[in-house]
Amino acid sequence: MTRARGADRRASIVRAAFEVIAERGYRGTSLAAVAERVGLTQQGLMHYFPTKEDLLTAVLETRDEWDLLHFGHARPGDPSAISVSQLADLVDYNATRPGIVQTYTVLSADSVTEDHPARKYFQDRYARVRAGMAQMLERHRDELPPGTTPEQLAPLAIATLDGLQLQWLLDPEEVDMSAGFRTFLALLGVKPD
Amino acid sequence: MTRARGADRRASIVRAAFEVIAERGYRGTSLAAVAERVGLTQQGLMHYFPTKEDLLTAVLETRDEWDLLHFGHARPGDPSAISVSQLADLVDYNATRPGIVQTYTVLSADSVTEDHPARKYFQDRYARVRAGMAQMLERHRDELPPGTTPEQLAPLAIATLDGLQLQWLLDPEEVDMSAGFRTFLALLGVKPD
Repeated sequence: MTRARGADRRASIVRAAFEVIAERGYRGTSLAAVAERVGLTQQGLMHYFPTKEDLLTAVLETRDEWDLLHFGHARPGDPSAISVSQLADLVDYNATRPGIVQTYTVLSADSVTEDHPARKYFQDRYARVRAGMAQMLERHRDELPPGTTPEQLAPLAIATLDGLQLQWLLDPEEVDMSAGFRTFLALLGVKPD
Repeated sequence: MTRARGADRRASIVRAAFEVIAERGYRGTSLAAVAERVGLTQQGLMHYFPTKEDLLTAVLETRDEWDLLHFGHARPGDPSAISVSQLADLVDYNATRPGIVQTYTVLSADSVTEDHPARKYFQDRYARVRAGMAQMLERHRDELPPGTTPEQLAPLAIATLDGLQLQWLLDPEEVDMSAGFRTFLALLGVKPD
C-alpha cells in the first residue's frame, strides 16, 4: 500500500471512531466496533492502531485540528490564534458532543498514571495549550486583575474548562459548562471579543 | 464473624490500600497487592471489596472523612464547616501525596462513563461538595465580585481544584497547585480566614 493510501485509511478509521464514540461513549468504543464500522478485521485495524489508547489519542488530535480550523480559523497546532469568544463558542459546542468530551476526560485523567501510553501526548498538549492560552490572555492584558499575569491565569483557565467538563458529564442537569466558563471570564475581567 | 470485626477488617484493608497506592500509584494497585499487604487471600479480600473500584471508592470516602476531621475539625460529611484557609492547606497537603490524588483523578474521570460502579458515588460527592463550597463562600459574600453568587462560583472553585490536580500530576515541575488555587481565591477577592 502506498503511503498516501495508508494515510487515507488511518483517516477513515479515525472518522469511524468518532461515530462510534458519539453513539456509544468511551466505554462502548472498542477496536472491534470501530473495525466493523470501517469494514476491517480487528487485526487489520491494529496494523494502524495497536491499542485503544493509540486510536483515541489520534481521535483527540484530530478533534484539536478540526476545532482550531473551525473555531480559530487558524492553522492546526496554533492555539494562540483562537480568540476569547471563539473559545467560549467551543465550550458551547462541546456541550453538544458528550461522547468526545467523555473520551477526553477519561483518557487525559488515565494518562497521569505511570508509563501510560498517552502520558507524553497529554504532557505535550497541556504545555502547548497553556502557552496558547497565555498568548490569548496577553492580548487582554489591560483587562486582567491587577497583579495577575497571563502565565499565572492560563493553567487556571484550562483547569476550569477540564473541571467543568467532569462535573457536567456527571450531572448535566445541574452543571452548565457554558455559563460556568463565562463566569470565569468575568472573574478575569475579560470581555469576549 | 461479628459485625464489629467485619468493620475492623474493612478498615485494615482500606489502610493497606492507602499504603499500596502511596507506594505504587493507581495503576500499580491491585486487589492482589492489597490482599498480600493485609495478609488475606485475594478471594478473602473480595468478600469485602468485590472489585478494585469498590475498594478505591472506600479509600476516597475514608480520605474525605480524615481530611474533614484534620483540616476542617468538622464532622465527617459536612464540608461546609471547612474554612477557606483550611481548604488552601488541604491543597498544600495534597501536593505531598500524589498517589491518592492520582487515584482520585483517574477514578472520578472514569466514573463519567455509562454504568460505571463509582458513578453514583461521584455524582453524590460532587453535589455535596458543591453545596458545601457554596456555604463556605456564603460566609465571604461581601468579598465576592459584584454580580456573582456563591452558587455560581462553587462549581468553578471545584473545577479549578480538579483541573489543577490533573495538570500537576502530568507536569509537577511546571504546575504549582497551591499557588494556582491561591490565585483563584484572589480572583474571587476572598482572603483566607
